[in-house]
Amino acid sequence: MNSDFEKIINNIAPVSPESLRQAQNHLDSLTKPPGSLGRLEELARRYAAIKGLDSPQVRNKAVYVFAADHGVAQQGVSAFPAEVTPQMVLNFLNGGAAINVLANHFETHVVVVDMGVNYDFGETPGLLNKKIAKGTGDLSLGPGMTRSQAEQAVQVGMVLAREAAERDVDILGTGDMGIANTTASVAVIAALTQRSVKDLTGRGTGIDDTTLQKKIKIVEKALQINRPDANDPLDVLAKVGGFEIAGIAGFILGSASARTPVVIDGVISGAAALIAHRMNPTVADYMFMSHRSQEPAHDVLFEQVKQEALFDFEMRLGEGTGAVMAMNILEAAVKIYSEMATFENAGVSNKSNDRG
Amino acid sequence: MNSDFEKIINNIAPVSPESLRQAQNHLDSLTKPPGSLGRLEELARRYAAIKGLDSPQVRNKAVYVFAADHGVAQQGVSAFPAEVTPQMVLNFLNGGAAINVLANHFETHVVVVDMGVNYDFGETPGLLNKKIAKGTGDLSLGPGMTRSQAEQAVQVGMVLAREAAERDVDILGTGDMGIANTTASVAVIAALTQRSVKDLTGRGTGIDDTTLQKKIKIVEKALQINRPDANDPLDVLAKVGGFEIAGIAGFILGSASARTPVVIDGVISGAAALIAHRMNPTVADYMFMSHRSQEPAHDVLFEQVKQEALFDFEMRLGEGTGAVMAMNILEAAVKIYSEMATFENAGVSNKSNDRG
Repeated sequence: MNSDFEKIINNIAPVSPESLRQAQNHLDSLTKPPGSLGRLEELARRYAAIKGLDSPQVRNKAVYVFAADHGVAQQGVSAFPAEVTPQMVLNFLNGGAAINVLANHFETHVVVVDMGVNYDFGETPGLLNKKIAKGTGDLSLGPGMTRSQAEQAVQVGMVLAREAAERDVDILGTGDMGIANTTASVAVIAALTQRSVKDLTGRGTGIDDTTLQKKIKIVEKALQINRPDANDPLDVLAKVGGFEIAGIAGFILGSASARTPVVIDGVISGAAALIAHRMNPTVADYMFMSHRSQEPAHDVLFEQVKQEALFDFEMRLGEGTGAVMAMNILEAAVKIYSEMATFENAGVSNKSNDRG
Repeated sequence: MNSDFEKIINNIAPVSPESLRQAQNHLDSLTKPPGSLGRLEELARRYAAIKGLDSPQVRNKAVYVFAADHGVAQQGVSAFPAEVTPQMVLNFLNGGAAINVLANHFETHVVVVDMGVNYDFGETPGLLNKKIAKGTGDLSLGPGMTRSQAEQAVQVGMVLAREAAERDVDILGTGDMGIANTTASVAVIAALTQRSVKDLTGRGTGIDDTTLQKKIKIVEKALQINRPDANDPLDVLAKVGGFEIAGIAGFILGSASARTPVVIDGVISGAAALIAHRMNPTVADYMFMSHRSQEPAHDVLFEQVKQEALFDFEMRLGEGTGAVMAMNILEAAVKIYSEMATFENAGVSNKSNDRG
């Protein structure tokens, strides 16, 4: 990888434990029993430690939806045909998809990035054209992309996150679109963790039993043919990943390098988060996991990055739908930190004062 | 109970299964794999079935925080002194509490109701004075209130919910404030379910092991002395409940009678929901459970009303904090229902069209 990018990845600064302690001290001074807001306190503490202890705010939120096609879709591993990838990209741009409705409700800006959709959009307002190629090669027949393409895609994501942070975006979210991308994600996660493909593979957008068995065999075959190196995340990404997965991995690394909290959507974003985490585990300090999806591989990801999901609404849609919901909960938690009265200001008797 | 109120309670109309089916049909026409928004679809489906299948909306949201004192606080069952109840009521009115910050973020109106706080607030702008008495009697020594007071408190809650629904409030939330009210809630739940007090009792705002043991003994003593009748919810409410619990129970009944969805906060609101549910199980059609709190009695409540919690943020604060978060998630779900594009409108290939 380009040495500038390597330097950025290697220089991600950890979040200071002292700042985390100070943030919790502030939370404990507020008019509520200590710890009684549970995970909201955990979110607020980390956000404050990253962004500043003195009245942190969440002003501008943006979710980036990375889209790409997958050659392996030709094997019939998805419930939907490959043409749905560009159709959904256009749906995002027209504001009709679930991510648009949720992002609008939660006042989050949506950015749609074409990382490698197999369609010529021409000049399409609102679409960021970062196409590396018109989809990956079929990973069950050979590597999905070259190492150089994987690097390029990661760098695109890094630059996008860093540019957003340099503007006025306080917090970033990840999202994905790509028919057959749970197949690539399972392959990535299996390659990096050496877990059984069978245990990791789920029904994606809703495949039947026969297709599920086929999907498992396809991923197993992809790993046998390509032999991705578990110790080389870029090799895994190139051989069995996807352009949107690479873009998201770079986006997470770029966010962390710019000290910007990044909220991770479902299992596709999770596979990307695992790639980023293997490149530098310090990214986890800036990552906020959102929901637990219905995909079985997801639980492995939480174990790997040592975080728990914030909620489980039995969702399995992607697009960033889980991320935007979590960003709003995080925003609420940050307001708790910055806007609540203290025991002293409100004249409320504190536990410790009255009962020792 | 006054026969008008009895009539209202007995005439709650169930939500039509046919409307639920039609609502799900609409959700399945939207540009997402069927069922892929999981619990959001469940929320939207029920809200639409209650409020109207054609483009339902959540415009005005209000959370009612019912406050009251408990004589049993004198036994030292809470981590905080009883004076905190009126102090927190004033904090609510000044906008400094967690419920204010969250409700403000989620654009929800907060109404504070004095059901029985042991303090003379005089003319306090913003406070609804519905005081039945200055706190209950100590339930470990005898009944907390008379049956007539319990009826009166339930009726206050019913009238408040029905008045809100008659104005323009689309959805209501419940909240509570009252030092020692987890003690009363555990007593109510144990009395109605015959479960072991030991298994139901938790640490409330954060008591130590010694206080926890004392709290268990106090509740056991209260049940022995008062012998509340498990088949008579009003008897249970009068003997071991609280004025805020009674108010919330009435509020839930009133909401359901006015066909208005009502979002239930934590374990205190849950105890009230159980009372309402025992008076007429059809209330459950209008109840939306919010979070799973840290109180062990909470899981029993979900079993009893046959609903699952929407999320678990390890919260244990009350005030309606869980309810306002869930109301916002419900609002997002309703927007999914009313604002997303259909496969047909967006020109997206549907699974069933393309793959049979």
